Amino acid sequence: MDFALSERARRYVDLAERFVRERVVPAEPVYLSQLVRSEDWRRWRIPPVLEELKAEARAVGLWNLFLPDEEWGAGLDNRDYAPVAEITGRSFLAPEVFNCSAPDTGNAEVLVKYGSDEQKKRWLEPLLAGEIRSGFSMTEPAVASSDATNMKATCEVRGDEVVLNGQKWWTSGAGDPRCKFLIFMGVTDAAADRHHRHSMVLVPMDAPGVKILRMLPVFGHLDEPHGHAEILFDEVRLPRSAFIAGPGRGFEVAQGRLGPGRIHHCMRAIGAAERALERLCQRALGRVAFGKPLASLGGNRDVIADCRMAIDQARLLTLKAAWELDELGTFGALTSISAIKVVAPNVLQRVVDAAIQVHGGEGMADPELGRLMGMARALRIADGPDEVHRGMVARLELAKYKR
Amino acid sequence: MDFALSERARRYVDLAERFVRERVVPAEPVYLSQLVRSEDWRRWRIPPVLEELKAEARAVGLWNLFLPDEEWGAGLDNRDYAPVAEITGRSFLAPEVFNCSAPDTGNAEVLVKYGSDEQKKRWLEPLLAGEIRSGFSMTEPAVASSDATNMKATCEVRGDEVVLNGQKWWTSGAGDPRCKFLIFMGVTDAAADRHHRHSMVLVPMDAPGVKILRMLPVFGHLDEPHGHAEILFDEVRLPRSAFIAGPGRGFEVAQGRLGPGRIHHCMRAIGAAERALERLCQRALGRVAFGKPLASLGGNRDVIADCRMAIDQARLLTLKAAWELDELGTFGALTSISAIKVVAPNVLQRVVDAAIQVHGGEGMADPELGRLMGMARALRIADGPDEVHRGMVARLELAKYKR
Amino acid sequence: MDFALSERARRYVDLAERFVRERVVPAEPVYLSQLVRSEDWRRWRIPPVLEELKAEARAVGLWNLFLPDEEWGAGLDNRDYAPVAEITGRSFLAPEVFNCSAPDTGNAEVLVKYGSDEQKKRWLEPLLAGEIRSGFSMTEPAVASSDATNMKATCEVRGDEVVLNGQKWWTSGAGDPRCKFLIFMGVTDAAADRHHRHSMVLVPMDAPGVKILRMLPVFGHLDEPHGHAEILFDEVRLPRSAFIAGPGRGFEVAQGRLGPGRIHHCMRAIGAAERALERLCQRALGRVAFGKPLASLGGNRDVIADCRMAIDQARLLTLKAAWELDELGTFGALTSISAIKVVAPNVLQRVVDAAIQVHGGEGMADPELGRLMGMARALRIADGPDEVHRGMVARLELAKYKR
Amino acid sequence: MDFALSERARRYVDLAERFVRERVVPAEPVYLSQLVRSEDWRRWRIPPVLEELKAEARAVGLWNLFLPDEEWGAGLDNRDYAPVAEITGRSFLAPEVFNCSAPDTGNAEVLVKYGSDEQKKRWLEPLLAGEIRSGFSMTEPAVASSDATNMKATCEVRGDEVVLNGQKWWTSGAGDPRCKFLIFMGVTDAAADRHHRHSMVLVPMDAPGVKILRMLPVFGHLDEPHGHAEILFDEVRLPRSAFIAGPGRGFEVAQGRLGPGRIHHCMRAIGAAERALERLCQRALGRVAFGKPLASLGGNRDVIADCRMAIDQARLLTLKAAWELDELGTFGALTSISAIKVVAPNVLQRVVDAAIQVHGGEGMADPELGRLMGMARALRIADGPDEVHRGMVARLELAKYKR
Repeated sequence: MDFALSERARRYVDLAERFVRERVVPAEPVYLSQLVRSEDWRRWRIPPVLEELKAEARAVGLWNLFLPDEEWGAGLDNRDYAPVAEITGRSFLAPEVFNCSAPDTGNAEVLVKYGSDEQKKRWLEPLLAGEIRSGFSMTEPAVASSDATNMKATCEVRGDEVVLNGQKWWTSGAGDPRCKFLIFMGVTDAAADRHHRHSMVLVPMDAPGVKILRMLPVFGHLDEPHGHAEILFDEVRLPRSAFIAGPGRGFEVAQGRLGPGRIHHCMRAIGAAERALERLCQRALGRVAFGKPLASLGGNRDVIADCRMAIDQARLLTLKAAWELDELGTFGALTSISAIKVVAPNVLQRVVDAAIQVHGGEGMADPELGRLMGMARALRIADGPDEVHRGMVARLELAKYKR
Repeated sequence: MDFALSERARRYVDLAERFVRERVVPAEPVYLSQLVRSEDWRRWRIPPVLEELKAEARAVGLWNLFLPDEEWGAGLDNRDYAPVAEITGRSFLAPEVFNCSAPDTGNAEVLVKYGSDEQKKRWLEPLLAGEIRSGFSMTEPAVASSDATNMKATCEVRGDEVVLNGQKWWTSGAGDPRCKFLIFMGVTDAAADRHHRHSMVLVPMDAPGVKILRMLPVFGHLDEPHGHAEILFDEVRLPRSAFIAGPGRGFEVAQGRLGPGRIHHCMRAIGAAERALERLCQRALGRVAFGKPLASLGGNRDVIADCRMAIDQARLLTLKAAWELDELGTFGALTSISAIKVVAPNVLQRVVDAAIQVHGGEGMADPELGRLMGMARALRIADGPDEVHRGMVARLELAKYKR
Repeated sequence: MDFALSERARRYVDLAERFVRERVVPAEPVYLSQLVRSEDWRRWRIPPVLEELKAEARAVGLWNLFLPDEEWGAGLDNRDYAPVAEITGRSFLAPEVFNCSAPDTGNAEVLVKYGSDEQKKRWLEPLLAGEIRSGFSMTEPAVASSDATNMKATCEVRGDEVVLNGQKWWTSGAGDPRCKFLIFMGVTDAAADRHHRHSMVLVPMDAPGVKILRMLPVFGHLDEPHGHAEILFDEVRLPRSAFIAGPGRGFEVAQGRLGPGRIHHCMRAIGAAERALERLCQRALGRVAFGKPLASLGGNRDVIADCRMAIDQARLLTLKAAWELDELGTFGALTSISAIKVVAPNVLQRVVDAAIQVHGGEGMADPELGRLMGMARALRIADGPDEVHRGMVARLELAKYKR
Repeated sequence: MDFALSERARRYVDLAERFVRERVVPAEPVYLSQLVRSEDWRRWRIPPVLEELKAEARAVGLWNLFLPDEEWGAGLDNRDYAPVAEITGRSFLAPEVFNCSAPDTGNAEVLVKYGSDEQKKRWLEPLLAGEIRSGFSMTEPAVASSDATNMKATCEVRGDEVVLNGQKWWTSGAGDPRCKFLIFMGVTDAAADRHHRHSMVLVPMDAPGVKILRMLPVFGHLDEPHGHAEILFDEVRLPRSAFIAGPGRGFEVAQGRLGPGRIHHCMRAIGAAERALERLCQRALGRVAFGKPLASLGGNRDVIADCRMAIDQARLLTLKAAWELDELGTFGALTSISAIKVVAPNVLQRVVDAAIQVHGGEGMADPELGRLMGMARALRIADGPDEVHRGMVARLELAKYKR
């Protein structure tokens, strides 16, 4: 039992911590001032400061740290990357600055493991170079996507081609002008067993038939310049080589990306919660009412203590999930992965709610706290709602007692 | 003990319920489509459908029902108006359609009770006719406004004039092109005892020195076309007749408006919670996953039951507060008024959170649920944060045991 | 809408309040000192002070107030009795002192409505005179009694007789030396539809075949001298006249007793919560740590405020349920009755938990707080667990949306 | 970052797990049947099965594992002992069977570190041999002991003697017939600074002036044959050699025992929570209502998942506290130690509450669940109430931001 970071992780954490504090956080207002907000996503542009920071981060080695593959990435395993991911959660800019933002991370992992040489050359290389971005089209508007058997979109093999049809939404990042490809998941063979029915297909954004219908608001915000797209795939015809790993292997490919992706999300949520708690404490010490700092009024210290205890526990559980994923593989980490997916977003929501409250009227108008509130709320739904993950934890718990 | 509505309240509730359902709710999308959203509040316009609905509502007698004064308003007491206010909470449009929206309601009450004949003629009449709107400038950005002794803005008597200086924020409604006057609260005589230090002044929006600095976002939303303004009062000179009730009586005037205003807020919150629960139930029955409607999965029924129990309790407490205000006056209703100000917004926040969760990805993009989430969150801060009201409830409770 | 007590209720409440404060609470230590605690229930005796208090209460008219029947009881409806029941919750002795304790109350109501003249003469009269006590045997150890279709015990008609077989538990009061009869519920005709399958039978305690197996501990306490019995009914033969209302009418009879019984339980729980909060506040004001009374430390005021708000809401909901029961009957009060059965015990549990915490080491050893903790916990299970009542509230809520 | 147990810890955990499962748990009913329950603590006797199990455990090496000292104990550090302590939490008998029960553990640690040779010879040796037991007299009835400066009892140096006066309570274990000494904490020099005011004194139980006033009930239970005594120290005269470490060093000695003691308490609480969850799951799978196992009804799976997530997080936090204590010492583990003292008992209380609820009527009568409910509740007060530990966590958190 050793709760210390490995030397390698410690080095990256220190580097990342300093970079986020000194370079990224101060650049946030610059980024926001350069941002074009518009209901018309075609007008979105990338704030120049972002590309500057990316170049800088890459230069100091804070680049593609999420990728455990030694050849393509930094070669950190989950337990070593997790604390770095937490640091990136302290700024909304940091993940992309380090080329570690979803869904590119998951897409890159998929291509490293299952991509053809051609796919790697054409799509993975520029993705890892930070030159292009990508999307992941799985969730569908008409059905409960928490139940994968509901999926309606198809990618049928017709001769040499694969033909995509269906409607997807919450394809995050698809509004980004640099987004050049999507990974699409659909049904290839509805008659196959439920683990061999789906396929993944690599779809260039400019393929005929790919129609962005709208960018979805997240509690009223469009998240420019990334956006969350609703997309119609209308008879999109691609060569068979567009399959990733081949037809019928969608479920297998999907499995592999889930665990690490959830750890990244949760560690970033924890980093965000730390930032919210920091703001809460600073406000509680700096603001005076009835002759005392807020920190000395009413139950505010209990609130602070509860936040600290919740964050520390959520972090440990997430680190344990990362360790299990490294040591035992996806199957051995099932309970922990589902558990953190419930715990971390709820902790973030609670800490942010408390931070807003302590800020009073200022909390309502504060852009960062508002953004975190929406992010926390969305995370309790995205990537499987709380209910599905609680169900999984309970199922595995009860399974211990069944013969 | 009789929990039935009076005949008069029942008649208004039925009328309002039908009007909101048949006329107001269907007009919501029209209103939204007519709305000009802009970061520049000078470009905001009133959607024409609103004025049409107002005329219609006035014609059927759904007008100024909040005003207990028989001469100027409908003459309903708090217990009879409260259930009507709940109905108006079911649509964000309804309060204004019935000319019952804050802060006009509080301002109108103040002018009825304390206004000079001239003030009534020039400002109250058009306000009650729905021709103009108004704002209330009390909260200040630099200090904790939950502690009234912190107030910094001044309204000094200089000869025949009163001169206003200071910075205010959260002056809701000040972005509305129809907003023609503000009621400003400031310090007239810092040396007086704490109950005779402040005054209220009626300030025409176009008075020289009134400078709107910006509209504050509420979790990123500007609430067009009303807006929440930060305003600089820079040597605003007005005749002494601009005082309401006379210098030094600000505290007294403020006291009277608090109780009814909180009851209105809370009953609207309860109406909003009912709408959220309605949407939750409809979704839970209509959406299928894993072969069952969501209503039959996991803990969703517990969630629904908890919402129903919380709403029903919050409503009863608010109605009791209204009854106490009518029967015992402000002082006799102190505990209840503070209690509902904690309870109702928290219930709304909880019900809306549950409704969003049951809607999954759709819940994140749903404009109504998103709006309600922000409204609930803001209400826990506006008009006194939870902490201040909990403190009041505790103080009164402990006072029972002190000699 | 009128939240004032009726004149009649007010009179009884005042009388009861004074009697409990001046006579009953001071007698608690006397009662406890006279009590024989023993694992052998046959040694239990009734503390003499109890019978003295009963005589006194009866003399001043605080007697059988629970009984709405004008002929047999005080003729108070539910809304008028409920506030009196709350007062009786302030002392564990008070309900019996006023001859208003369960399960006698429910049994008496059943006999008033459905009993034969003979049953009334022989059992109801001494019961209402406070000379004997009674039990109610419904719940069974082997099955989930929350699902009435699980009931296994039988009361078969054989010729002129009814023969009882089966095992029951949680027959409260059966350890009392004065307990002279039980009302037994069992299956008469398993083939009948589910509403006509069961019957109620009046069983003298000394009927051959009635075997008390043990007294069940409630979290380790036997509740001397009442006790909660597990009873074997082994070929208990009774004349057919022992049926209450006749065979097959058990469901109908049961329905009628549930609503009022739950209101009594919940109002007593609220009275108990008030007493716990009173103790909490007194301790918070009287105990000093770190130089301040506990009431001024940390989040204790928030705790007090939350207790006050929860109690007040639970009371209002319970009063509304009583009013609905009076005005609309059992069917119209279904949601409220189930709701209060969840809400009130949970509020009591929470308030008692807080009171214990504020008492620190003294709270662990305090007999009253310990008793209330057990009572609250038991109430969340007895008379239908939280889960069943939440399920009912949800079912009725969802039913609004089904066609 | 390595979440695996050390080889040594794994060996002890496996051994302890098997021993508890195969030998200790089956002996629980034997122990209970041999137990003499009486309000007169002088009649208490040690069930013979306990001494048999102790001999057996000692023979297989499950003995004094708590003691990090290599000479006197097993030499496990905190992180290695903690998982063993968890196992002992699965049976109320196990801690004593392994000679690892409080307050002997803390007393032994104190004597190992600070005891004179004579004290070690006479008291520590038989204690570690399991021949005698001991008590710790710190808390006082008249004052808030969470604030150490409140301590009133004195141990004054008078010539060659130390003289003890004062009243103590919650001296756990003092009712045990084998209890032969107490460690008493009192004020030696009220004028000294707050860290040098107190002393610890070793008091033989039979010293003249040591008067046990009563055994305190814990929610009505006396915890035979250990008991929690209220003790009067009335001019107890001892030779100066009775001081532990010398006069004025009480604070220093107390500091050292707190950290490990809290880790032991918390890990046992976690083991107890695991046992409660096990019972919850078994009941949920085995009990049928409405045609389904309880595990498939309503929100029961959510309850199970929430328990699992809470337990896993509490365990990780406690293990981290143990690791910090080993690596960083008391000062470096302050936040974690206080945090677990809040978290673990609350988790236990919540899991036990859920287990009781799922057991319905059986849950109320179940002796184990009832015992755990009381234990959980007591743990939130004993060894510093939640409030004090939350306050410590908050203070350390806020200290990060103060200059």
